[in-house]
Amino acid sequence: MSYIEYKEKKVYYETHGQGKPLVLLNGIMMSTLSWKVFIDAFSKSNQLILVDFLDQGRTDKMEGISYTQEEQGEVLKTLLDELNINKINIVGISYGGEVALEFAVKYQQYIEKLVLFNTTAKTSPWLRDIGTGWNRSASDALDYYCTTIPVIYSPQFYTEKSEWMDKRKKFLTENVFNQKPFMDSMIRLTESAEHHDVVDKLSSIKIPTLIVCCENDYITPMSEQKQLNELIQGSQLVMLPNTGHASMYERPVVFASLVLGFINLEQTEFII
Amino acid sequence: MSYIEYKEKKVYYETHGQGKPLVLLNGIMMSTLSWKVFIDAFSKSNQLILVDFLDQGRTDKMEGISYTQEEQGEVLKTLLDELNINKINIVGISYGGEVALEFAVKYQQYIEKLVLFNTTAKTSPWLRDIGTGWNRSASDALDYYCTTIPVIYSPQFYTEKSEWMDKRKKFLTENVFNQKPFMDSMIRLTESAEHHDVVDKLSSIKIPTLIVCCENDYITPMSEQKQLNELIQGSQLVMLPNTGHASMYERPVVFASLVLGFINLEQTEFII
Amino acid sequence: MSYIEYKEKKVYYETHGQGKPLVLLNGIMMSTLSWKVFIDAFSKSNQLILVDFLDQGRTDKMEGISYTQEEQGEVLKTLLDELNINKINIVGISYGGEVALEFAVKYQQYIEKLVLFNTTAKTSPWLRDIGTGWNRSASDALDYYCTTIPVIYSPQFYTEKSEWMDKRKKFLTENVFNQKPFMDSMIRLTESAEHHDVVDKLSSIKIPTLIVCCENDYITPMSEQKQLNELIQGSQLVMLPNTGHASMYERPVVFASLVLGFINLEQTEFII
Amino acid sequence: MSYIEYKEKKVYYETHGQGKPLVLLNGIMMSTLSWKVFIDAFSKSNQLILVDFLDQGRTDKMEGISYTQEEQGEVLKTLLDELNINKINIVGISYGGEVALEFAVKYQQYIEKLVLFNTTAKTSPWLRDIGTGWNRSASDALDYYCTTIPVIYSPQFYTEKSEWMDKRKKFLTENVFNQKPFMDSMIRLTESAEHHDVVDKLSSIKIPTLIVCCENDYITPMSEQKQLNELIQGSQLVMLPNTGHASMYERPVVFASLVLGFINLEQTEFII
Repeated sequence: MSYIEYKEKKVYYETHGQGKPLVLLNGIMMSTLSWKVFIDAFSKSNQLILVDFLDQGRTDKMEGISYTQEEQGEVLKTLLDELNINKINIVGISYGGEVALEFAVKYQQYIEKLVLFNTTAKTSPWLRDIGTGWNRSASDALDYYCTTIPVIYSPQFYTEKSEWMDKRKKFLTENVFNQKPFMDSMIRLTESAEHHDVVDKLSSIKIPTLIVCCENDYITPMSEQKQLNELIQGSQLVMLPNTGHASMYERPVVFASLVLGFINLEQTEFII
Repeated sequence: MSYIEYKEKKVYYETHGQGKPLVLLNGIMMSTLSWKVFIDAFSKSNQLILVDFLDQGRTDKMEGISYTQEEQGEVLKTLLDELNINKINIVGISYGGEVALEFAVKYQQYIEKLVLFNTTAKTSPWLRDIGTGWNRSASDALDYYCTTIPVIYSPQFYTEKSEWMDKRKKFLTENVFNQKPFMDSMIRLTESAEHHDVVDKLSSIKIPTLIVCCENDYITPMSEQKQLNELIQGSQLVMLPNTGHASMYERPVVFASLVLGFINLEQTEFII
Repeated sequence: MSYIEYKEKKVYYETHGQGKPLVLLNGIMMSTLSWKVFIDAFSKSNQLILVDFLDQGRTDKMEGISYTQEEQGEVLKTLLDELNINKINIVGISYGGEVALEFAVKYQQYIEKLVLFNTTAKTSPWLRDIGTGWNRSASDALDYYCTTIPVIYSPQFYTEKSEWMDKRKKFLTENVFNQKPFMDSMIRLTESAEHHDVVDKLSSIKIPTLIVCCENDYITPMSEQKQLNELIQGSQLVMLPNTGHASMYERPVVFASLVLGFINLEQTEFII
Repeated sequence: MSYIEYKEKKVYYETHGQGKPLVLLNGIMMSTLSWKVFIDAFSKSNQLILVDFLDQGRTDKMEGISYTQEEQGEVLKTLLDELNINKINIVGISYGGEVALEFAVKYQQYIEKLVLFNTTAKTSPWLRDIGTGWNRSASDALDYYCTTIPVIYSPQFYTEKSEWMDKRKKFLTENVFNQKPFMDSMIRLTESAEHHDVVDKLSSIKIPTLIVCCENDYITPMSEQKQLNELIQGSQLVMLPNTGHASMYERPVVFASLVLGFINLEQTEFII
């Protein structure tokens, strides 16, 4: 159980294994716990770092305090400084990918390689309204479930894993989405993404970047990652067919293969 | 102002123009009024029929009565019988496309050609949960707006037409989504779609059918229309890039061109 | 049997029916004869004009004379002047679409609406090399067939219509691709497309334009039509899934529906 | 310089490095030399095996002898037996992917994991005619270049790397495609693929399989890999946007990341 302090808030993190450091940045509804099944694979040849952002998991709540995704990037910066890490591989998914971008446009000298799953360069008016819908639904667990979860998973996954989804529905509505402190955090986290916009700064990024988009991502649609691919010089774009926004859960083998393959490939250029 | 009666409910309809009859079946949140800008184009060479389904527009509300999309098909059947029409072109979008399918699997002898925009053969568990999210949000106008509208329009349209969307937001939240009778109707209409499933009956359809899917349709995704295309023998599939679920509003020129071009083409086979 | 004269060459054309004039511009390997099955449908409410470009069909051969697609546009201009037509709907496929573009950037005041199937704004180095491959194969009928025909049809059509394709192979290799005058024309036609490039002029086009791309078009891939759609202001893009470059043959019903629906729609704006 | 013997033909192979064995199976026009830039990356943690199929590279020519891709699988089997390898990771691209499939349906007990880039389950009539076009062009170096090379690379790559392509054109037309022994081999290799068809046997494959398709692959189009993905139980599908058939050359970083990430991931299931 390790913590650092950021502006008088305790921030929870974990490290696992040895090797080139690699941090996995959580999606909005996730926490360090969400990566449990990936820990062995990711810490086999790397030092894996997991961290709960402000208002996530075992990190302190932010009652009464508003913040941005840029500030979550400062949390990451503080953690790296405490750990004396000056070069790291950053993997972010969704909210975590956006924090990764906020971090990258300020501190790219700290980044060895960058991997972005289901990430957008900017919170559009469309996405902002979706966020408002989430927050307006937060007082009713089933409403919140039905407003957020179907857009996170692909229709195919939802249908094929219906038993798993049913269990998850029961668990989330009975143990998570009915907990006011959790929901208050979700509201603040959602609000913290409202003003994310690094579009004009992306051309400065020169680090090797892998961008992954998913055919059935209905919250950060493929056009967002195509934009990232155009704006980040030399970046690589990969698409996962029949996959929704929660790509790490829908396609864990491909998620792990892409991350570990890209991060641990020493050669960055192949002159053919 | 014309009405027929269906099970003691008054059902509103309009006819415009002369020629091969053509009925446009409304999406769930629409009414005969929604087609206003299309009336001239569609009634120029055709008899255009518009109709409000049970719980829509000027048709009676269904307080305390539950019904299905199959029953909305019976409403259409009753209307055709009253108008002495025994051969008609049916164009449906979304909810209206599903009613068209429910009608087609029972009464295809009445159909000359069928055009389906943004239609699914079946309400999947995924779509059912989305519907539940809509209904759980119905007591708060802004919640309802933010839960339903962003998934109906493409992110591109939402962003490019932000001024129009803002006006629409104001209008819908201040005049429509805060009206209890309208919202009660929406709840029942949403419930009426829960058990739609004609998958096993589609192979019986032999009428010329045009199916239109949209790249950014996040409520009846393209995979649904690909399934329709596979199941309906000889059907034609067309895709609209950069377009969301509300294709008639996002791409009115293409909507009208496809419908009128397909419906009024006399030749149905071209032996090349 | 009607002819006009263009620079001492006889140019064959046909007109059918009455109404708003509409010209169908041939693909490279086509002639007025190729549209035979479409004549009834297209002349029902329109004056349909068909024309053989220089080196096509019943128009004179161009032995020893080189020309460009821009010049084929001049042929069209001459024809319109002879017929006293000062406003026309132009539909072009592939080579014909490119001639339509060459014409449009010079004479858009003559165009009412423009429809482009499988068209590129520019002959890229990639496409130029494909053309060279065609021409180097021209001395062997089977070589020419196997070099040109598979890239023109989608793999799906080729496989599903294998009997039709086999007959076509026999016919083309035994009666067409072994005819030196035809092959010499094909070589010159292919060369005439080498320098097509209107990219920088497309922003001047203000006429209603429909652009159709096909999922399995491997000679003018979808990215080409997406570029046209971005460059031609207000243009409409439609995609045909499971369809190759010869879209008029693979999807004749959709081809005719799109053209006639778009051309004959009087309303060009729908203010929603 | 190592050789084994297969039916009195010398078969060239190389091994590099130590670790879990991994064989890269060549595309039709490739040889062990083609993998030069990948050797360091692929042999860092694995024993990398490269092999020239019959009629490729330093392996004997097959003058007067016809063979199939199934037989190339037997060559691989013979090599594994000689090297005393009874469990190997197989990565094949195009022709090599098809040989991998022919091997897998007979000897899957020898395979740990399977990775297929740009591979088809069956040589369709369409692909067979393309092959015939290649072979009919084989007597003219420039014809052969223009018939084969543009369909191997994406239009984007061809245009962006035009200088590299020009050099390659010069090299291939002046040093390779004008060499009769090489061209005779290419003709036989192309013929050896004519009857490839493992469609009905794919359901028996139970090994972890990664399938990679490319958006601009115009010789083994994406629909082919979608079919593989449906037929091989539990297989993973990944798509590379803006990439042609020669994916290893167009996207070497992603190629290496996917292969090494997937092959070296010890965990094969992630129970979420």
